[in-house]
Amino acid sequence: MQHGGNITRYQREWGWSREEMVDFSANLNPLGPPVSVMQAIQQALPRIVDYPDPLGQDVLSALAKKWALPESHFLLGNGAAELIFLAMRLIRPRRVATVAPAFREYEQAARVEGAEIVRVPLTAETGFAVEPEPLMRVLHEVDMLVLANPNNPTGRCVEPAILDRLLAAAKEMDKWLLVDEAFLDFLPDDETRSLISQVPVADKLVVIRSLTKFFAIPGIRIGYVAAAEQAIPKMRELQIPWSVNTLAQAAAAAGLADADFQRSTIEWLQIEREYLAQRLRDKGYRVVPSDANFLLVQRDDVEIGKWWPKLAAKGLFVRDCRSFAGLDGTYFRIAVRTRAENQRLLDALE
Amino acid sequence: MQHGGNITRYQREWGWSREEMVDFSANLNPLGPPVSVMQAIQQALPRIVDYPDPLGQDVLSALAKKWALPESHFLLGNGAAELIFLAMRLIRPRRVATVAPAFREYEQAARVEGAEIVRVPLTAETGFAVEPEPLMRVLHEVDMLVLANPNNPTGRCVEPAILDRLLAAAKEMDKWLLVDEAFLDFLPDDETRSLISQVPVADKLVVIRSLTKFFAIPGIRIGYVAAAEQAIPKMRELQIPWSVNTLAQAAAAAGLADADFQRSTIEWLQIEREYLAQRLRDKGYRVVPSDANFLLVQRDDVEIGKWWPKLAAKGLFVRDCRSFAGLDGTYFRIAVRTRAENQRLLDALE
Repeated sequence: MQHGGNITRYQREWGWSREEMVDFSANLNPLGPPVSVMQAIQQALPRIVDYPDPLGQDVLSALAKKWALPESHFLLGNGAAELIFLAMRLIRPRRVATVAPAFREYEQAARVEGAEIVRVPLTAETGFAVEPEPLMRVLHEVDMLVLANPNNPTGRCVEPAILDRLLAAAKEMDKWLLVDEAFLDFLPDDETRSLISQVPVADKLVVIRSLTKFFAIPGIRIGYVAAAEQAIPKMRELQIPWSVNTLAQAAAAAGLADADFQRSTIEWLQIEREYLAQRLRDKGYRVVPSDANFLLVQRDDVEIGKWWPKLAAKGLFVRDCRSFAGLDGTYFRIAVRTRAENQRLLDALE
Repeated sequence: MQHGGNITRYQREWGWSREEMVDFSANLNPLGPPVSVMQAIQQALPRIVDYPDPLGQDVLSALAKKWALPESHFLLGNGAAELIFLAMRLIRPRRVATVAPAFREYEQAARVEGAEIVRVPLTAETGFAVEPEPLMRVLHEVDMLVLANPNNPTGRCVEPAILDRLLAAAKEMDKWLLVDEAFLDFLPDDETRSLISQVPVADKLVVIRSLTKFFAIPGIRIGYVAAAEQAIPKMRELQIPWSVNTLAQAAAAAGLADADFQRSTIEWLQIEREYLAQRLRDKGYRVVPSDANFLLVQRDDVEIGKWWPKLAAKGLFVRDCRSFAGLDGTYFRIAVRTRAENQRLLDALE
C-alpha cells in the first residue's frame, strides 16, 4: 500500500532536511498547526502519564455543539483510517460499491472483511464528476456504497442534489452508505454539504471525518464518525480500548474551538487554489475542478515515473497517482501549499 | 468493559485535582516518565505536522538490537491492546483457552472474531499459580492458548519450566500460543524469561509487549508484537495505516535506550514491592506472590463495593477486581507506587 506523505522515506532516500523539502504529496493545511492546537498539546503533555479518557469526552462535547446533535451520535478513532476499518467491521458487507479513482483504504478495509468490490469508474471527460445513474444501478447489487465528499484524489465534491438522491435511494433500498468527509472542513459550505445532520434519520448512514488534515497534525491521529445512535455502541464494542491518545484529544478539542483558524484557512484556500490551478492551466496542464485543498493534474506528456525523481531531486514531493485505479502515469496530485512553495513547484514544472 | 486508570471519571465523580489523588488502579511505573522520554517527545513535537513513519523504523531498530533478532520479527501497534486484537484477527481461532482470572481483553478480542472461550481456573489455594496439567489437557480442544507472563491481576509469572513445556506442546500439537509480556520488563530477568527469543523457531508463537506501562506514558499508546517472520506482514496487512503516532515512536525509541532508568526501576521495585506486600500481610491481608509491579490483595472482610468509595473519598483509587472471572468482592489490586503514596494507602487501610 503506497501513500503520500512518507517523509521518513523521502528524507532517507533523497537526503533533504525537513526545512529544505516541500511535501505536496500529503493533503495537509500549510497554515497549520494553529497556535491554539500546539498550546493545547503542550498543556496536555503532563497528562500522558495517565491512560487516555476512553471516550474522549471533551472532543465529544465539542462535536455535539458543532453539529447540534447529541454526543451519542459520535465516536472518536485513531485517525479516520481506524473508523473506515471499524465501519467495515460493523457492517461486514458482502459487496461494496465505490468509485474509481478513490482513496484505496475503502477497498482494503472492505477486503479485510471478505467483501467483493464493485468499482464504478469516474471519467476524465466529465472531470471525474460523480454521476447518479451508474451508482443507482449498482446500488441494487451491493450492500454498501462508499463515497468520499470531496473525493480523493480528484478533490471534487458530489453535487448536493445527487448526494441527496443517493441517500434517499440507499434508505429506500435499505443499503449502507458510508461517506468520507475527510476534507469537507476545507469548504466554506461544509455544514450544508455534510451529511452529518442526516444521521438521526438514516440508520445505515455512516459519515467519517478527519481532524488532522485541516489542523495539520497527522502525526498524532484523530478522526471521528457520525452515525445513528444504535450504531455507535456497536462500533465501540469492536474498537480497541484507549484507541485515541491523550494529546490527539487535546489537540482536536482546541482545533474545533478555533474559529479564527478555520476562517483564515477557508479564505486562504479559495484564493490560493485558484491561483495554483490557473498557473498550471497556463502551462497546458489539465486541472480537475477541485473543491478541496489539493489538485489532480494531468498532461499527456507527463511521465510521472520519470518526473517524480526529478522533482524529488529538487526537494519537491508530489503524489504519483498510478496506484489509484483508473489513473495512469500522466497524472499527479498536489496539495495546495503556501504561495512561495507553490511557486517553487510551478518553477520546477517548467 | 471496566478498566483501571480512568482518571477522567475519578476526577469528575470525586472532584480531586490530579495532584491530590493517587491512582493505584493502573499498573504504571511511578518513577516515570524518564526525562529522556519526555525530552524525546518534546523534540518530536514539530514533526506531528507530518504523517507518522508507517513502520516506526527507529523503534524497530531499537527492538532488533535489544532482542538480537532481525527487524522483520517485530510490528508496532497503538498500544498492546491493538496487537491483541490484531493477533486474533490474524489467527481467527474457533476456540481459545485462557486462564481465569486474566486481563479481559483477550476474551473480548477473541469474541470479536467469533471464538469460543475455554477458561482454565487458577485457584487461590495455589496462589493463582499456572499449573501445566489443566492447560496441557485443554490444549487438545482449542486452536490457541493465551497466557500473560506475568499474569494480570495476580502479578505472578509462569514458571520458566512450565512455559517451556507449554510452548513445546503447542508446537507439537500445531496450536497458537499468545503470550502477553506487558509487564515482563519490570523483572530483573526479563530477557531470560521472555519468549521473544523463540519466535524464529516457533511459527505459531506470538509475544505481545507494552512500552507504556514501564515508561509511564499510557496516554500516548505504543506496544509491539514479536512473531515469526511470515506472520508479521500478514498482521501489517490487517492493521490500519499510521496506527502508531509520531510522539509514541519517539518516546519508545528513547525509553528503550535509557538503560539507567530501566536499572533504577527494577531496583526500586524489588525493594518497594516487598515493603508494601509485607506491610499488607502485617495487617492480615493475603497478598498473591507477585513478580510484577502490582499486587493482588485479599482479606475475607473486604467488601470492595463499600471500600472503594471510602478510599476514593480519600483520593485513593484501587482496582475493584469483581470484573475478573474468578475473583469476588474480597479482592482488590494495587499498583506498587512510591513509598509516600504506598504509606498513604496503608494508613487508609487501617
